[in-house]
Amino acid sequence: MVKIGYLGPRGTFTKLAVDTAFNGEDKQSFTTIPECIDAVHDEQVDIGVVPLENAIEGTVQLTVDYLVHQVRLPIIAEIVVPIQQHLLVAREFSSDLSEVTDVYSHSHAIAQCHQFLHKYMPDAKLYFTSSTGKAAEMVSNSGEKIAAIGNRLAASEYGLTIYQENIHDYPNNHTRFAVLAKDKQIVQISHETQAEKTSLLITLPSDYAGALYQVLAAFAWRKMNLSKIESRPMKTGLGNYFFIVDVNQPYDDVLFPGVKAELEALGCNVTILGTYPVHQMQL
Amino acid sequence: MVKIGYLGPRGTFTKLAVDTAFNGEDKQSFTTIPECIDAVHDEQVDIGVVPLENAIEGTVQLTVDYLVHQVRLPIIAEIVVPIQQHLLVAREFSSDLSEVTDVYSHSHAIAQCHQFLHKYMPDAKLYFTSSTGKAAEMVSNSGEKIAAIGNRLAASEYGLTIYQENIHDYPNNHTRFAVLAKDKQIVQISHETQAEKTSLLITLPSDYAGALYQVLAAFAWRKMNLSKIESRPMKTGLGNYFFIVDVNQPYDDVLFPGVKAELEALGCNVTILGTYPVHQMQL
Repeated sequence: MVKIGYLGPRGTFTKLAVDTAFNGEDKQSFTTIPECIDAVHDEQVDIGVVPLENAIEGTVQLTVDYLVHQVRLPIIAEIVVPIQQHLLVAREFSSDLSEVTDVYSHSHAIAQCHQFLHKYMPDAKLYFTSSTGKAAEMVSNSGEKIAAIGNRLAASEYGLTIYQENIHDYPNNHTRFAVLAKDKQIVQISHETQAEKTSLLITLPSDYAGALYQVLAAFAWRKMNLSKIESRPMKTGLGNYFFIVDVNQPYDDVLFPGVKAELEALGCNVTILGTYPVHQMQL
Repeated sequence: MVKIGYLGPRGTFTKLAVDTAFNGEDKQSFTTIPECIDAVHDEQVDIGVVPLENAIEGTVQLTVDYLVHQVRLPIIAEIVVPIQQHLLVAREFSSDLSEVTDVYSHSHAIAQCHQFLHKYMPDAKLYFTSSTGKAAEMVSNSGEKIAAIGNRLAASEYGLTIYQENIHDYPNNHTRFAVLAKDKQIVQISHETQAEKTSLLITLPSDYAGALYQVLAAFAWRKMNLSKIESRPMKTGLGNYFFIVDVNQPYDDVLFPGVKAELEALGCNVTILGTYPVHQMQL
């Protein structure tokens, strides 16, 4: 049986992504992103699922930095999950919204529901927890007059009632997760493939005006469309940058080697982080 | 007296940045990034300090999204603070590192000290807290055999001892904070100015291969150097992007208006988020 490692704990968005994408496999929760990535590298698990772009539980920075600086593992798939935040209360809760005194959640989830809280619960005290799952657990333990903000999975894992659905401010928030594995063949995600992408890591030889412009020329004249570009400082010192670029097409034997050769001629270093399908999940 | 709002709670990196940059002003802590930004907008405080690029307490996403979509306030300065994580124990702690059973901290701080924990404290159980300040508070309340990961301020605020300094994996980690104010003249930060920067928000008319390349051309031929570029999805739907670009020079009356006019001719929307000095803090 395929073993899947993921960033825990229970009732979080990463777990929700894993449960939506995979079915029946042996799933193991890890405490931190580096632990989860190490477990794939050390072959304790076959697949690791970690947040790649996630406004709730992690930053893309930890995942990308660890992949870039510590453990090079290919990304074999991307899972995209909509963020839906709900107001969760204990089953025995029978009061009005205005009587809720305390709201618990991860600080980012509370910030994402800022307008709802401001408008409908201006007097409630806000308490931060280490995850949305943890907030649900606290409400399940103490019952009346308190609420948590979290997802549907947190509600079912901790036996809570969804008092109000979709209280997040922006309807189009998504989280992206990277599926990491040494062996690309190990997993088949049956959900529809929305796109094929290739992620590249590009380091520049030095920082000068127009350097990035030169780099993008290699993609532009080949009509290769970028869906994401992000500059990140190298850990070696101030002023040195690397770029993460997502190209909207699968790796091929003509265009990508051409880009790589051109960029290397400019003194850049180019690494393929992965070429993989993107699966959009519906909750 | 100038009133400063910042993202709380006590003993966190934002508070450390505020205390290092400002002196003696009236400081008020806010629970979330949107609350802090709203307070500046509503003139409850004169200045707001929020994380802009911070691997610990917040993501740049919340701050940037709120500034872009909700409340437009100019960035009047940037504060850069090195991240230094220490292992903190209660004053009465007299045991060996190997006897520490539990380590508390924010999940990102624990991930940042992954190698230290793995090597020197492989058997310690890791517990997540909502902030590094909260972790310090828990250690101060329960004493023996447990430790927290946090900064120097957390140690002094909660009367803890620094058992081991600088246990973070990467020496060159920094956090960046935006100082927001309606009136640019209100604050003088006396620390040395490391650079002058201008941040722009650029939205593209549509997503096509080479669009970003065209945008960067306007900067490249003027020899304007970009220190950061990041694409972010618009909240209005999938597939629409905006770009945050940091240019390594102050706003002027020739180059920037030229860039703006050229980009607008291409159908882009260009907003100046701020032109401001960057202050590097030494701890």
